[in-house]
Formats: sequence, structure tokens, C-alpha cells
Amino acid sequence: MNLIPTLEDLHDASLAAQVQQQIDRKTKPLGALGRLEALALQLALIQGRTLPRLEQPQLVVFAADHGLAARGVSAYPSDVTWQMVENFLAGGAAVSVLARQHGLALTVVDAGVRHDFAPRPGLLLRKIGPGSADMLAGPAMSAVQCEQAIRAGREVVRGLPGNALALGEMGIGNTSAAALLLARLSGEPLWRCVGRGTGLDDAALARKTALLGEVLVHHVDATEPLAVLAAMGGFEIAMLVGAMLQAAAERRVILIDGFIVGAALLVAARLQPAVLQRCVFAHRSDESGHALLLAQLGARPLLDLGLRLGEGSGAALAWPLLESACRILAEMASFESAGVSDASTDASTGPAAGSTPQP
Amino acid sequence: MNLIPTLEDLHDASLAAQVQQQIDRKTKPLGALGRLEALALQLALIQGRTLPRLEQPQLVVFAADHGLAARGVSAYPSDVTWQMVENFLAGGAAVSVLARQHGLALTVVDAGVRHDFAPRPGLLLRKIGPGSADMLAGPAMSAVQCEQAIRAGREVVRGLPGNALALGEMGIGNTSAAALLLARLSGEPLWRCVGRGTGLDDAALARKTALLGEVLVHHVDATEPLAVLAAMGGFEIAMLVGAMLQAAAERRVILIDGFIVGAALLVAARLQPAVLQRCVFAHRSDESGHALLLAQLGARPLLDLGLRLGEGSGAALAWPLLESACRILAEMASFESAGVSDASTDASTGPAAGSTPQP
Repeated sequence: MNLIPTLEDLHDASLAAQVQQQIDRKTKPLGALGRLEALALQLALIQGRTLPRLEQPQLVVFAADHGLAARGVSAYPSDVTWQMVENFLAGGAAVSVLARQHGLALTVVDAGVRHDFAPRPGLLLRKIGPGSADMLAGPAMSAVQCEQAIRAGREVVRGLPGNALALGEMGIGNTSAAALLLARLSGEPLWRCVGRGTGLDDAALARKTALLGEVLVHHVDATEPLAVLAAMGGFEIAMLVGAMLQAAAERRVILIDGFIVGAALLVAARLQPAVLQRCVFAHRSDESGHALLLAQLGARPLLDLGLRLGEGSGAALAWPLLESACRILAEMASFESAGVSDASTDASTGPAAGSTPQP
Repeated sequence: MNLIPTLEDLHDASLAAQVQQQIDRKTKPLGALGRLEALALQLALIQGRTLPRLEQPQLVVFAADHGLAARGVSAYPSDVTWQMVENFLAGGAAVSVLARQHGLALTVVDAGVRHDFAPRPGLLLRKIGPGSADMLAGPAMSAVQCEQAIRAGREVVRGLPGNALALGEMGIGNTSAAALLLARLSGEPLWRCVGRGTGLDDAALARKTALLGEVLVHHVDATEPLAVLAAMGGFEIAMLVGAMLQAAAERRVILIDGFIVGAALLVAARLQPAVLQRCVFAHRSDESGHALLLAQLGARPLLDLGLRLGEGSGAALAWPLLESACRILAEMASFESAGVSDASTDASTGPAAGSTPQP
């Protein structure tokens, strides 16, 4: 298996025209379902059919620890990473609750948590190491580990059923890694990329920003996507990159959560820009670099609810909108089938006898 | 039955503090679930209990015709009103599809459609008249009809089960009525209140605005909420006002759809301001007066998806977020129950033996 899969271009003018016409004949004014219409079209193009269907949707949370966390970049201790993994698996975390609500199968992947988990259903043990290394002392991971993590992410997705993948993450310290990836890959000033994470106060935010500035200087030579990922990423982020590439190659719908998953996508899209055609953006988070990240990705998220939790919680909340987009296409009647007069036409004819909405 | 019910004030500082503490002990950084947390608190206050539950949710669509439509304020002929009612009942309209997706029981109310419907399940025949009158010739309805419609709206809600009510509407010409209500009750210039409705072009929008300007002049004496409603409202809007007042009196959660439902709420809130405590705002629509209307109501909607369909489609799309807010409260583990270290605390203790998330 090559590290980076090749991706088909999904542009298909003929299919797009067909789906758009289908949308425009539904019993509603042109464009009246707003973003839902564009979403329906995108899902159709990803799946290459006029009636997209979402089957066995998966929500995968990649978890890892970060050596940099020991330097105090988070309001929470590193042990919260493994404790939250336990919480995901026990069903008590936000993402567990929301995945259950929407029938998303939840899988947690130990990409590199500093803890030994007992094996159990719903948990995949794919640990690359017990947390990434301190980025101020060297790269977060070696080039070999980085490749290993990307391959592991690809394997995880290859082993999952379904045609839609929502992605989440857990890792104390990972807003730092995400901010660094964003800063280096976008070239934007660091302060625009760094945020409060789990809730730093002003002084702690200033310390975090200063520390991350040192990291950037330390890794000034890392400029290519894979080198940047190894130097300043994390095991869960590298695995997310692999998961996205594999899902894209399989033409799965990829539902992107917040800041950290978005930063992984920035790397993936530099490696294979066509991955973006498969991505639906769940939400704009409250983490301050996220708006900038979304702009870099040319993304317009579905929700804007002031979330800043990660885990895939925003992706889970957005999920029903994807379902709605599919149902609009599959279940709404057309003007013709429902006998509804179109704009500015004569309304002398009622519904055709026995007409029913499309199943 | 009095026309306007009295409403309890739902402010309860002690309950609010209790719920907020419950939210803050959930396994997530403080405030990390953003707007979902405020929503959970609001639902708890509406129901007067720490664990709100949404039971047998209802989506009610009030439909009526408008005499003013004959003057060409809409891109669609009036017959589309009854045709869409048939479409709602046959299950082929957007709101039918979305209500089905989310398990919302759909009821359509003929508040004054210019058509005789055969009775059938899911349709309530509460016709006040065969469409409202031409507002340029006189009031849209008499004071007696207006009272009759408000009472009918109250009766409709009284007859429905459940503790949550999503509201929608159908009526060719009703963005005109809504714009007029907004203009008169807010005192804002008319052009800020008028929009393209089902999709008018620039010339048609200019004609609509000019015509509505004449209507405002014609009804310059209507300034009290009920007088404004009778002069420039519509049967479905007056019935919506009644439905809101009744739902508020019963402490149901009221889910407000878009521009027309919002205009009805503006009237209801002038009659009884405490109705707003019970209202959740589903979305910001693309109809140009809607942002102004939301500002008048002090409302911040959950979704912003460029919808401009009405029917209750936006309310249906927002519904799962209300469910999520309840589930967060009921199902998420606390730091204590899950054995997760809180911010900046020592992480020496793991999960308590046998600890499980709250059911």
C-alpha cells in the first residue's frame, strides 16, 4: 500500500446537473432549502448517484497524548486523555451520548495514549508510542512513526463498514499541535492560530503562545506537510490524516469535527487536495484559530453553536442534517408528482388522480 | 376562557443554579458545549425540573390564504396553499419528510384556506373564512374573526398531547402579512421588513414594497397588537398567536420556525411577554426581514442555513438539538461518576471501581 492513495476527481457535470434538476423540481421555491440543497448535491457527487444513502455511519475518535502537555499548555493534566477514553467507552462522554442519539457506531482508537488499556469492544489498540515526544526537544514523532500512524489510520478505516465517517479526537495538549500545524502550513502569524483550548485564562494563553513560538523556531526547517506533521503533530492527528485519505479513496462521506480534526485535514489536503471534495464541515468552534483554519480550507460549516469540546461532538450534532439532505432528495414530492403549481404558472389543475410523493 | 391567558414567570434562581451546577460537573471543560448548555438550562426552566424530557413532540402547520395575494405579492398563485396542504398530508413536502425523520407528529390546520378539504387524519378543519380579506380594501379580518382564530389556535394546542410544540405555517402571501406586522409593531421602515418571499425578482420586490406601503397607510390607526393583527395579519397567523399563548400557559417548549411564525410571536409577546421564556428559535432564515425580527424578539436562533421555505421545515431541522440538550443533562457522566480529573487538579485517582455514567 502506498502511503498516500490517489483520489479520483469527483466533478461530474452531468450528474451534478441531473441532481440539481431533481432538487429544483421538488415542491419548494428554487433554493428555498438553502445549504441543505448544496449538501444534498455534494453527497450525491461523493457517492456518484442521484440518490445518496448514508449507510452504517461510523464515528471514530482517535486519542493520544502529547509530550508538550508536560510544559503546561493545557488546563487539564495528561491523565485526562485516558480517563476520557474510559468515559467514551463507558458511554458517559458527550460524544458517546450524541453518537447514541443518532445511531452512529462509536469506535475509539488508542493512537498513542500514555496508558495501557484493557482490550474491549469499541476500542482499537493502535498505539504508536506512549504519547508523542516533547516538541521543544525534538520532533513530536519520527518520520517512521508518522508513516506508521498514517498507515494505521488508513487500516482502521479500511476495517470499518459503511459509507460515512465522522471524525473526532481526544488528547490533552492537542490544540497546541493543531495551532502549530495551522501556523506553519498557512503562514499566518501564530497568535491568530492559538486559542484557549479547554479554557486557559489570559496569562496561561500568553504562556502557551510564547511556548508555541519557541516550538515553531525549533522546527523552522519543517515545511513539507509530512515533515510538519512529524515535527509538530501528534499520533492521533497523524492517524486522522491516514483515516481521511483512506475514507476519501473509498469515496466515503467524511464529516469533519472541529479545530484538531480540521488541522489534520489541512495536512491531508496538502497531500491530496481532492480529499476536500468528500468533506462536510460540521461546525465552527469557539476555539479562536478555527475560523482561520476554515478559511484556509475554503470551508463553510453547518453549525455555529459555540462548541469547544472536540471528541467529535460537533460532528455528531451535525449528523442529522446529512440525513435530512438525503431524505429531501429521496422522499420529497416534485411539483409534477404532487400536482402543485409551479411559480407563476396557471393553477387550474389539481393533483393528478392517485398521485403520491416519491418513496 | 379569557382570550389571553396569564403566564407564570419561569425565572427560578434556585433551579437555575442547580441545573447550571449539574452542567458544570459534566465531563467537559466549563462551557464547552456552548449554546447547547444554555438550551439545556432553558428547557429545564420551562419544565421546572432538573432533567427536562421532551415527550410526544408535535409539529403543527397552520395554513390560510390571503386576499392580498390576488394583487400579486407572491411568485406563486394562491392555489398553491391548498395544494401544499395536500402535499403535507400525503407526506411529500419538506416538512413532512423532516417531521417523519425526527418523529414529530405532524398536524395541519386549515385556518382559512380558500378550498374545501375532505376530512382525514392529520388535518384539523378550523376554517375562519375562505382566506382573509384584501387589506387594501379593509382589515384582513374583523375583530371577531381575529378573536375566533386566537381561540381556535388555543383549542388546537389544548387538544394535542406532549410537552413540546414546533410551529409552522403555509399561506401564499403571508410574508407580506408578516412584514406588515413587523413594520407596524417595531416601527422600523418598511423596506427593512420586506423580503423576496418565495423568490421575487427586484421589480416584483419593489412592487410588493410599494403595495405594502399603501396597506400601512390604509391602516395607520391600527397600533395595538390585536388591532394590528386583525388589520394586517392572516388567519394562520392569528391562530399561531393563540397556539403560542396556549402552549406557553401549559409550559410546553415552543419551537419557533422562521419569518411568519416569528411575526406571530411578535404579536403574542406584545400580549404576554413571558411567552418568550418558552420559545426556542430554530433558525435564521434567508428572508431579509428575519434578522430584524429576531433582534426585536431578542432571539438567537440555533441554525443559520439559508432556508426560506417556511412550513416549519427549519423547526424540524433544529429539533434534534433540543433532544441533544436533554440527553446531555440526563446521560453525560460527571467528573466524579466517571473518575475524570477536573481542570488543574491532581490526577492520581482513576475511575472509581464500578463507576458508570448516569443513566
